Amino acid sequence: MEHRKISRAVISRLPRYHRYLGDLLEAGVERISSNDLSKKMNVTASQIRQDLNNFGGFGQQGYGYNVKYLYTEIGKILGLNKTHNFIIIGAGNLGQALANYASFEKSGFILKSLFDVNPRLEGMSIRGIQVRMMDELVDFLQNNEIEIAALTIPKSKVVEVADLLVANGIKAIWNFAHMDLDLPKDVIVESVHLSDSLMQLSYNISRRKEAKKK
Amino acid sequence: MEHRKISRAVISRLPRYHRYLGDLLEAGVERISSNDLSKKMNVTASQIRQDLNNFGGFGQQGYGYNVKYLYTEIGKILGLNKTHNFIIIGAGNLGQALANYASFEKSGFILKSLFDVNPRLEGMSIRGIQVRMMDELVDFLQNNEIEIAALTIPKSKVVEVADLLVANGIKAIWNFAHMDLDLPKDVIVESVHLSDSLMQLSYNISRRKEAKKK
Repeated sequence: MEHRKISRAVISRLPRYHRYLGDLLEAGVERISSNDLSKKMNVTASQIRQDLNNFGGFGQQGYGYNVKYLYTEIGKILGLNKTHNFIIIGAGNLGQALANYASFEKSGFILKSLFDVNPRLEGMSIRGIQVRMMDELVDFLQNNEIEIAALTIPKSKVVEVADLLVANGIKAIWNFAHMDLDLPKDVIVESVHLSDSLMQLSYNISRRKEAKKK
Repeated sequence: MEHRKISRAVISRLPRYHRYLGDLLEAGVERISSNDLSKKMNVTASQIRQDLNNFGGFGQQGYGYNVKYLYTEIGKILGLNKTHNFIIIGAGNLGQALANYASFEKSGFILKSLFDVNPRLEGMSIRGIQVRMMDELVDFLQNNEIEIAALTIPKSKVVEVADLLVANGIKAIWNFAHMDLDLPKDVIVESVHLSDSLMQLSYNISRRKEAKKK
């Protein structure tokens, strides 16, 4: 299959399709029409048809989509048919929360270790995965095939740690620090800015209050 | 000032402007040109000019933007000039991580309590904020002005808890469960789907690998 022409906007919607199709699959649903999927997902049926047409003939007029096939194909596009080893830098609450998400593993993201500077966390393990000290990081990276590093450390440490990771071959960073990272172009950075999300919420609260005043 | 015509796309970029302007303010920068801001933020200067023109005359050709003024005005649009009381439902790792983000408070988000069903967490407090048991929730909501509830609980509990919150007057939910919520239209929901973000990362890894093969 040829995926080269899929737009950014469609790609950004794929994880949500994947999630809904996964739920349907778990519920034993084999086929679903774009209309039914549209009602579930609260987007228009025409948007769904347009998006999924990017992947060729998954649906036939009147027959609906084959849930398992579509789920698998979207998973392939998202790279979920392969495993991705990852580590977490920062074994505080957020790092531990991520380490406890067993669902990442189901999607092929295999947590190999956590790292921290806090000596009190040394020797601790989460779901059998060991917390190591930061001075073991370089050695660990040299001896393990790690693809992704999640950064759940304070903003003040992020630049230094990101540089160290990149210098040791890490090419994909999942960043939770409240800042953007300026790294070489071949390093992929995906940031989760929790404050930005909270501000969107407060923007919408303000808007609603204004609307009520009118 | 009149903000009614600002597009969704611009709004979604405002938290990032607010963050960068806040950093500049902390660094003591008083004025910045769209060109310099553009280099910092890695977007085009024309995009910045277009976005910020929505708020009227913050910048004058050749003089740049008044950092403090722009920071304050964007903050107002985002509703950050008011305080928002919030609670966290789920005092596990993720809930505790959110409770420890003191920076939310600086933006006016005041954490009033955490709630959990785990009796081992009863009486615990985080930065002086008490963890209460879920059976105290309704009473607490009736006696405190809470605007936002953050949900950091398992997917299986989310629907039930969200319904309870809405029945008790909560109109804004910050959802971390890996599912979308189907709530009355006047309830604002902002979801953080961590898996979706991880999948975007893995999509980009796959794309890079494909590009290298060519």
